[in-house]
Amino acid sequence: MTSQEIIRPDIPPYAPTARVREAYAIIGAVSRPEIWTYLRPMEEVLADARSVEERCATGGVLPLAGLLVVVKDNIDVAGMPTTAGCPEFAYVPTRTAPAVRRLLDHGAVVLGKTNLDQFATGLVGTRSPYGAVASALYPEKISGGSSSGSAVAVALGIADIGIGTDTAGSGRVPAAFNDLVSVKPTLGIVPADGIVPACADYDCVAVFARTLQLAGSVLAVMAGPDDGDPRTRAWPASMPFAAPARPTVGVPRPEDLHALSPGYADAFSRTVVRAGAAGIATVTVDISELLDAARLLYDGAIVAERYAAVGAFLETAPAGADPVVAAIVKAAKMPAGHEFAADLGRLARIKQSTAALLEGLDGLLLPTTTEHPRIADVAAEPISINTRLGTYTNFCNLLDMAAVSAPGEPAPGGGPFGVMFVVPAFADQVAIDLAARLLAEPPPLVVSGGVDLAVFGAHLRGQPLHSQLEILGARFIGPITTSRDYRLLALKTDPPKPGLVRCGGRAGAAIDGEIYRLSPAAIGTFLAELPAPMALTSVELSDGRWVTGFGCSQDAADNGVDITPYRGWTAYLEDQAAAVP
Amino acid sequence: MTSQEIIRPDIPPYAPTARVREAYAIIGAVSRPEIWTYLRPMEEVLADARSVEERCATGGVLPLAGLLVVVKDNIDVAGMPTTAGCPEFAYVPTRTAPAVRRLLDHGAVVLGKTNLDQFATGLVGTRSPYGAVASALYPEKISGGSSSGSAVAVALGIADIGIGTDTAGSGRVPAAFNDLVSVKPTLGIVPADGIVPACADYDCVAVFARTLQLAGSVLAVMAGPDDGDPRTRAWPASMPFAAPARPTVGVPRPEDLHALSPGYADAFSRTVVRAGAAGIATVTVDISELLDAARLLYDGAIVAERYAAVGAFLETAPAGADPVVAAIVKAAKMPAGHEFAADLGRLARIKQSTAALLEGLDGLLLPTTTEHPRIADVAAEPISINTRLGTYTNFCNLLDMAAVSAPGEPAPGGGPFGVMFVVPAFADQVAIDLAARLLAEPPPLVVSGGVDLAVFGAHLRGQPLHSQLEILGARFIGPITTSRDYRLLALKTDPPKPGLVRCGGRAGAAIDGEIYRLSPAAIGTFLAELPAPMALTSVELSDGRWVTGFGCSQDAADNGVDITPYRGWTAYLEDQAAAVP
Repeated sequence: MTSQEIIRPDIPPYAPTARVREAYAIIGAVSRPEIWTYLRPMEEVLADARSVEERCATGGVLPLAGLLVVVKDNIDVAGMPTTAGCPEFAYVPTRTAPAVRRLLDHGAVVLGKTNLDQFATGLVGTRSPYGAVASALYPEKISGGSSSGSAVAVALGIADIGIGTDTAGSGRVPAAFNDLVSVKPTLGIVPADGIVPACADYDCVAVFARTLQLAGSVLAVMAGPDDGDPRTRAWPASMPFAAPARPTVGVPRPEDLHALSPGYADAFSRTVVRAGAAGIATVTVDISELLDAARLLYDGAIVAERYAAVGAFLETAPAGADPVVAAIVKAAKMPAGHEFAADLGRLARIKQSTAALLEGLDGLLLPTTTEHPRIADVAAEPISINTRLGTYTNFCNLLDMAAVSAPGEPAPGGGPFGVMFVVPAFADQVAIDLAARLLAEPPPLVVSGGVDLAVFGAHLRGQPLHSQLEILGARFIGPITTSRDYRLLALKTDPPKPGLVRCGGRAGAAIDGEIYRLSPAAIGTFLAELPAPMALTSVELSDGRWVTGFGCSQDAADNGVDITPYRGWTAYLEDQAAAVP
Repeated sequence: MTSQEIIRPDIPPYAPTARVREAYAIIGAVSRPEIWTYLRPMEEVLADARSVEERCATGGVLPLAGLLVVVKDNIDVAGMPTTAGCPEFAYVPTRTAPAVRRLLDHGAVVLGKTNLDQFATGLVGTRSPYGAVASALYPEKISGGSSSGSAVAVALGIADIGIGTDTAGSGRVPAAFNDLVSVKPTLGIVPADGIVPACADYDCVAVFARTLQLAGSVLAVMAGPDDGDPRTRAWPASMPFAAPARPTVGVPRPEDLHALSPGYADAFSRTVVRAGAAGIATVTVDISELLDAARLLYDGAIVAERYAAVGAFLETAPAGADPVVAAIVKAAKMPAGHEFAADLGRLARIKQSTAALLEGLDGLLLPTTTEHPRIADVAAEPISINTRLGTYTNFCNLLDMAAVSAPGEPAPGGGPFGVMFVVPAFADQVAIDLAARLLAEPPPLVVSGGVDLAVFGAHLRGQPLHSQLEILGARFIGPITTSRDYRLLALKTDPPKPGLVRCGGRAGAAIDGEIYRLSPAAIGTFLAELPAPMALTSVELSDGRWVTGFGCSQDAADNGVDITPYRGWTAYLEDQAAAVP
């Protein structure tokens, strides 16, 4: 990864060691011991921060330098106990999960391990012998879960980055209750080895941060296959690198929003209006089949994955087992294999209808969850409230989709409310770009593996063929100029196009253009459809790089008009327009 | 699909109606009623054949014109009963399965529905109330199954094309026992709707034919997504379009071949030698994990898929239920959902090791099955022999692989013996190309969706950069010449390359080149790595087509030496070489 490719997160303007001292000061001030299953001694963390300072001082490029990370306690960090929220389950791993390892390699520093709904089974944050976790701003209300401690530690300013997992909504729901961004990438993009499984086929690492910029940068660092995870997947050869300039998303019909509390229904309406104002068009779609899929996760046979994961352990009746979690997991012994197979068939059919539903759309805009319950409410009704909270999150991994949860318009009275952009597998960058629009943040680049293409004429922004790039999911990277070795000719084509010609020693000029990034398959398709006399070749830029870019055939150039002095097609067109009275 | 893209099968040199009469004459002569669950009256089939003759006479392009098809009786053909081998299960569908529909649309004619191991559960061909099917040439031996009738009908010359299914080897095993080719494509490439499921997640349509050429052409016609099958998959944007010129395949260690009968062990050794003589290099690999995966299909929990498919029907205890099949399917009610989930985890891990095993290899060369049992042997030992027969076929769909089974060297005494080329998902064309080498047949093109690339210099066969195309899985399509509007220049590059320049009205010549087909992602990758001064553009061919092909930048052409009179780079190089004393 070159430094050009990393979008640097908003690094605090103070040294890593100072940040550590600040974090421990907040920890002392807020008095929230239930956030932690294991908090490292400050001296240890300071030593790590000092080491990062030294690496930076000696020229290390550490894009996450000194950012403080909290790790959900179902994810291994070498030398710290992993409990998964159950003291009897505890072991001390010797190896750090690759997802976390990659953050450390990029300069992040771990503060400790955080509380969770035991075995990541729950969306409430109260199912833990280490204590119910309250939301950052409303101590009588739940934090959401299962990644409760990680979310609250970030929301309180203790940590910069929260690492959680999200099988049924365990990243997104606590993000919604703590006014955070959470990125839940496509399954397998972040390796899941070194993580205690909840539902091994549907478990996913999730990131919390206060900004999309930082959450996305963390995902970019964590992404990439790892041999230790058999379900790991690389970014494919064909995927979008950007949302289009005028995106359209589906929003649920009113009858699919009945699960929402009145306050959340109101906040969702206002957030949809805000999305429209941010340039995201909406159309109403029927999401009832997605809600059916959501129910398959707990009410169907697929819950058996939870028994496969930790059922044998819970059958030993450990004293620290949460009674609600133990009941759910033990009941997951019951479904038959043939029921499991039948539910896989139902999921396959719903996946297919979902693809049809999303035809022509860039994603879905949904409420992240339904209401913000009090801790006392959940204690009284531990199952039914939890089930309702997962209405809009449960289906996502089952249907192989990616999502970003972001703060929406506040609930009446000012409470937090979150919305999700949900997209098909591998369209993670589209969800990021949509959320960036809603948040009015610059979108971080989270995908990798694309090919850069320099354009100089009809494919520039605002020019007639620009939409070809947009349809192929091309991402605008920035303006560029060529080295001084090029001439630009106005060709006799329809629509009018310029031809860029390398002049090889003769007098040339630096010509203005733009760079786009596309998947290998998209640029292959673009090339296959490129008509004569246009050509794609390697073009030298003013900074000495060579990138794939436009040229033209010699016969067309020979018949063209030399417009090199304009140093760019747009300048030439503006001059032509100005010449017309 | 243009006629250029269809590789025409070996159409018999007589009219479709004559072929029908011949088929019924053979049917009468061989006296094998157990082949059929439903044989159409000859007059009906003749009417279809006449209709094909009329379509051809009025200019219809029917690449399968008049070829006779038999359809395994777990696949719907409108108006003919589907029994799946159980009379009480019978229904008369109103819609023909898309896989078969596509054959009819291309001119094939259905003869009837064929016997099978009931509910496609078995590899023997004896588990059917319609009678045990004997092999075509050895009436005391089994046909193999479950696609027993389709294989034998093709082997006896009754039908040209046999359509079967292959979940655990049901296409490949009967192909081996009847000296046929069977193509088992990647799961989902041929839609499976209109097919009675055996294991819905692992069921696959398979083709039988006497030649690879025909079997492959049939696959090409049947392939492509269909809305009715939720598990349908399109050819992806990144996949190989050819095996390399010097392929290497893995062959099992001796200890992984212990299941083979002495005769089959001997035949396999001789077939490996023959593969070597045909230019296929072999290396010994450890396939023990694949054999473990194979056992998961019946001995693990995944067999529950069979109960999900037809368990409820068999619980009604129909009189026509085969006792062995009924026992297997009813026992498949037992595995628990969590055991199913755990086995999915095992499969995921084995998939990952298989990918590592195949690193650097083009596929595996395996015996298709272990021995050729007598019908009496199977009657005495209905389970254990069947299990052994699936040793090398069972794992294929579980691990998302494709395979082609082809006749190998005969067993001692002359009996049939089959081998398989097994490849990762979507590398179907590689398996076809490897089998074509072994059989010394021209390989049919089975994949679609590629981009054509015309090359004129260092990427031609035998030239120094040709390997770049090979690594990207490019397929040689044929020699081409450009229109007469091009000049060829020897450029000052290293290695030496020519530049093709369109001369636009000035004197040019038709220049010789070659066309290759690549996946969109492969050509995108090729473009991204293409150094200046080379360019890719649209090139006009002598037949008026425009295809993506090589050009070069103008400055390089200006400094090149005009070699147009040679009309091609190879001719120029030969002349240069001849000029050196």
